Amino acid sequence: MSEAYSKAETLALRRKHIGPSCKVFFAKDPLKIVRAQGQYMFDENGEKYLDCINNVAHVGHSHPDVIKAAVKQMELLNTNSRFLHDNLVQYAKRLTDTMPEKLSVCYFVNSGSEANDLALRLARHFSGHQDVITLDNAYHGHVTSLIDISPYKFNQLGKESKKEFVHVAPSPDTYRGKYREDHLDPAGAYAGEVKKIIEETQKNGRKIAAFIAESMQSCGGQVIPPAGYFQQVAEYVHEAGGVFIADEVQVGFGRVGKHFWAFQLQGEDFVPDIVTMGKPIGNGHPMSCVVTTREIAEAFGASGLEYFNTFGGNPVSCAIGLAVLDVIEKEDLQGNATQVGNYLIELLNEQKRKHPLVGDIRGVGLFVGVDLVKDIQKRTPATAEALHLVYKLKERHILLSADGPHRNILKFKPPMSFTQEDAKFVVDQIDALLTGTHTNEGNLQSDCLGESVSHINGNACRQENGFYTDNHVVPCKRIRT
Amino acid sequence: MSEAYSKAETLALRRKHIGPSCKVFFAKDPLKIVRAQGQYMFDENGEKYLDCINNVAHVGHSHPDVIKAAVKQMELLNTNSRFLHDNLVQYAKRLTDTMPEKLSVCYFVNSGSEANDLALRLARHFSGHQDVITLDNAYHGHVTSLIDISPYKFNQLGKESKKEFVHVAPSPDTYRGKYREDHLDPAGAYAGEVKKIIEETQKNGRKIAAFIAESMQSCGGQVIPPAGYFQQVAEYVHEAGGVFIADEVQVGFGRVGKHFWAFQLQGEDFVPDIVTMGKPIGNGHPMSCVVTTREIAEAFGASGLEYFNTFGGNPVSCAIGLAVLDVIEKEDLQGNATQVGNYLIELLNEQKRKHPLVGDIRGVGLFVGVDLVKDIQKRTPATAEALHLVYKLKERHILLSADGPHRNILKFKPPMSFTQEDAKFVVDQIDALLTGTHTNEGNLQSDCLGESVSHINGNACRQENGFYTDNHVVPCKRIRT
Repeated sequence: MSEAYSKAETLALRRKHIGPSCKVFFAKDPLKIVRAQGQYMFDENGEKYLDCINNVAHVGHSHPDVIKAAVKQMELLNTNSRFLHDNLVQYAKRLTDTMPEKLSVCYFVNSGSEANDLALRLARHFSGHQDVITLDNAYHGHVTSLIDISPYKFNQLGKESKKEFVHVAPSPDTYRGKYREDHLDPAGAYAGEVKKIIEETQKNGRKIAAFIAESMQSCGGQVIPPAGYFQQVAEYVHEAGGVFIADEVQVGFGRVGKHFWAFQLQGEDFVPDIVTMGKPIGNGHPMSCVVTTREIAEAFGASGLEYFNTFGGNPVSCAIGLAVLDVIEKEDLQGNATQVGNYLIELLNEQKRKHPLVGDIRGVGLFVGVDLVKDIQKRTPATAEALHLVYKLKERHILLSADGPHRNILKFKPPMSFTQEDAKFVVDQIDALLTGTHTNEGNLQSDCLGESVSHINGNACRQENGFYTDNHVVPCKRIRT
Repeated sequence: MSEAYSKAETLALRRKHIGPSCKVFFAKDPLKIVRAQGQYMFDENGEKYLDCINNVAHVGHSHPDVIKAAVKQMELLNTNSRFLHDNLVQYAKRLTDTMPEKLSVCYFVNSGSEANDLALRLARHFSGHQDVITLDNAYHGHVTSLIDISPYKFNQLGKESKKEFVHVAPSPDTYRGKYREDHLDPAGAYAGEVKKIIEETQKNGRKIAAFIAESMQSCGGQVIPPAGYFQQVAEYVHEAGGVFIADEVQVGFGRVGKHFWAFQLQGEDFVPDIVTMGKPIGNGHPMSCVVTTREIAEAFGASGLEYFNTFGGNPVSCAIGLAVLDVIEKEDLQGNATQVGNYLIELLNEQKRKHPLVGDIRGVGLFVGVDLVKDIQKRTPATAEALHLVYKLKERHILLSADGPHRNILKFKPPMSFTQEDAKFVVDQIDALLTGTHTNEGNLQSDCLGESVSHINGNACRQENGFYTDNHVVPCKRIRT
């Protein structure tokens, strides 16, 4: 395929015309990707890369069924939702059919950020309160209102950047959080922290509108909350007049395998008041959704304030959304997520037994984190090593990223068409790279990475979605052995 | 074409599953549209409607060139902008080529709301200030930060809903504003109001981050600011350390005919610091953009805060954006906007001479407002009459809407493929309807509309985008003669 520009020209034009705040992946030697299929991406020279990170291309890159549905609808009509259209209501029905009964009303919007912002508006109208409890390390989106409730972002702006209406609860991380796997009741202990926040907040005359959390923390470090945590939090939040918002933007649509939604891992007795979705919903098409209860929707409607979203719920987006649901079913991608995910976790656990750098493996379905540590007892985050590994894997044509507050957690969230062979391939490569390091007792955080480590612990390290792209980081030229 | 549901079933499912805050057009008898081509929409019975309102379908509904570009790219790749891609940089180059030189850096996002929110973030990072000056009746989007700066919305929530960092300047409306067409220097007078606000704000120790205005007010009542107004405002705002944000979400992309951007109507010496765009940019595809100066972009980058937008700038959106630019050029849609727009304005001015209900005709290109008045001297807004006319036109298969703070302004913003024949047809129908009323000296605001008028002046009237859809309004069954 002939490209309009050489890679160098593309990069030069990008530097000229694209805001520098959006970093490219592998800044030192970025990838120019021109084609993708299933779980594979291809660069301008036809080189093939295994994609372990693009959860947006949920049912696989360039899926023909999704394209077909898009084209068919584009040729007929693409307009706003002030006109009646079957796609809108069919899609709303199909989506809500995947949820507990009381979650029955949809608002279609264009991005996870728009969804979470609207969720906050709904919560505030319903409760009449302002304050929000969020989890430490959480990231909920890029618009102003969400930067405010995302410690992952506002912590970078200095301590005074936390707004007074925002309250940060500890992340329910049983590996490196306040209460760990040896605690008798980590769910209760972490929920108790939320209760304490509510009580303190109320003492100060403030009122809770919402508790918001990803059903599993993604950028926050692939954290899977202990079962029962959400139920108890919801109870405390409801008592305070607030609502529970489950952010499924990264983790919904069957990624966890045995359930369609990650919040369902908590148990059947848990039902959030608002669920937000995004990324995988349209396999890359810009769309998203907020689902809530009739009661909350009516309260918002009763304010008299119209909510209109120009593109949200247009017939093309809905046709694409329906096609994605069809493919998940038809190809049994939930079954695949369970099967391949279990296999991947099994292989990674072997790595854990083998390499002291691997501190923890946690995951469910095709959402898996590998927590790298410098000291297995102290669980010291192996940030530089994670970055280094990500760069070395790229050389081996595997796309993986590191995330979490310390950027030491390898994050798997591949297209759902990921296979056992893919899992085997990537773990074999990790094994080879890790074997190269510790067999000679070399320390990865040594001279060759020393320069970058000082940056890694600084501000520049805290990049979104695990794409560590600070230009100052010079990847180690060879693994020190 | 066979539909999945009858209109009644579609409506019932919509009531069940779609948030009630998004109103349908013509609530009493909504339209089910199943197909559209150019400037025509077709309902489930194949009935054809002339579309005078859908500015999103900019180059015409279902344009084959746009669809072709989308399909071609969807089949290859749709991924995020952390990978290099030619479409992204080509599109950024093409877009910035339409602008004054200093506007050279793009941020691609998914909606006008995301664009305006980001514009505020850029302005605040650059200036280090917080406060925003906005125009009365302005609407800038549906996310929390934009409701705050949209009097069109927050005025509905009661007086205390205006945040202390928001300052409202008078709309530069020379027909019904503070300074009118008989003023010697309305541009200077309106700009002076902004200056006064800045001075008062500074006295209170507050600092201006931005002045934001649509280049022509849309929901605010089809207001075309007097030339020279923006230049003077920009001067005052710059002196105060703030930036000028031109919101082109509704009015950009050649709609005004002689220029590609509506802010260019102010004169060549005017260059905003930030321009936001949306609706027409992708002919219905969810996408939008913020364009700014290198200086402002660098300041945002220097904060260390990453800005990543999952869908923004993906290769499919950019391919669609490029195709839209191509069609505007290839079909000389700017030329068409000028020619047809001038003709439409000429025909409407004839109506003004003929019917006392028509108080003012204002417009440029295919952005035209018809200000209906009950009293030509007092310029009393003819709200009920406008609503009634819109409903009667729908019976004649013409889609038009009424907007502005009093919902008395008929708003033309059709697809740019609108023809002289279309213009003639709609004006003939308006003529026929208006002739039916005043020839018999009947008063449109009479018994048959009395019921609705009490509602129209209330809260329910203030709907977004001119889609007056209060269920309590019973359209008059016949014109009173």
